[in-house]
Amino acid sequence: MIADVFSRGCTSRQALEAVTGRWGVLTVAGLRDGAVRFNALRRRIDGVSEKMLAQTLQGLERDGIVVRQVRTTIPPHVEYSLTELGLRVADRLVALIDVLEGAVDQVDAAQRAYDARRDA
Amino acid sequence: MIADVFSRGCTSRQALEAVTGRWGVLTVAGLRDGAVRFNALRRRIDGVSEKMLAQTLQGLERDGIVVRQVRTTIPPHVEYSLTELGLRVADRLVALIDVLEGAVDQVDAAQRAYDARRDA
Repeated sequence: MIADVFSRGCTSRQALEAVTGRWGVLTVAGLRDGAVRFNALRRRIDGVSEKMLAQTLQGLERDGIVVRQVRTTIPPHVEYSLTELGLRVADRLVALIDVLEGAVDQVDAAQRAYDARRDA
Repeated sequence: MIADVFSRGCTSRQALEAVTGRWGVLTVAGLRDGAVRFNALRRRIDGVSEKMLAQTLQGLERDGIVVRQVRTTIPPHVEYSLTELGLRVADRLVALIDVLEGAVDQVDAAQRAYDARRDA
């Protein structure tokens, strides 16, 4: 069977939803520069709740995008990092983010023009 | 101000949520090959409701990613297409989709291994 994200039942559609979705993009992008502890990642992703970040990480771990590792330091701590597949996904997401961060003035202008038309 | 998708208030964060989000990715990717009518797009995106697709397109139009055009044919019809910014976004999304469609067996295997560990 050919993988097709446009088909509801395809695993690739589900993986796409995990790495995009409400918090998926920022979680994967936030892990791109190396292993991060839960709380550091949570501070980085402005607005995410503890519960939502935990759920997002769990889904990404299940899909083979993220690895959870317990470091046997004293005290022990848990770190999250990207798998090789996760890194490839992160590179594509960061390319997308670069486009949008670079177009922020253009998006602002489009929004103002749209709202002005609607209010007219 | 520097655009930063990790910050809640940034327009780039909002634009990122529009082009990812529940139906954003598939809507933008589905328009990549040229203008499409609403119903054709809806058939392509397996599982989207009329209401959700209309809302998604409206949000993308507001952000300057999508253009809605009324064609003065008889009878007239409405087409959606990507702006120049939308095309750049679509290229990045299609690169992401290619990675995930190509990794579908890997994701399946990761999911089975994860579920087996959890059930053990």
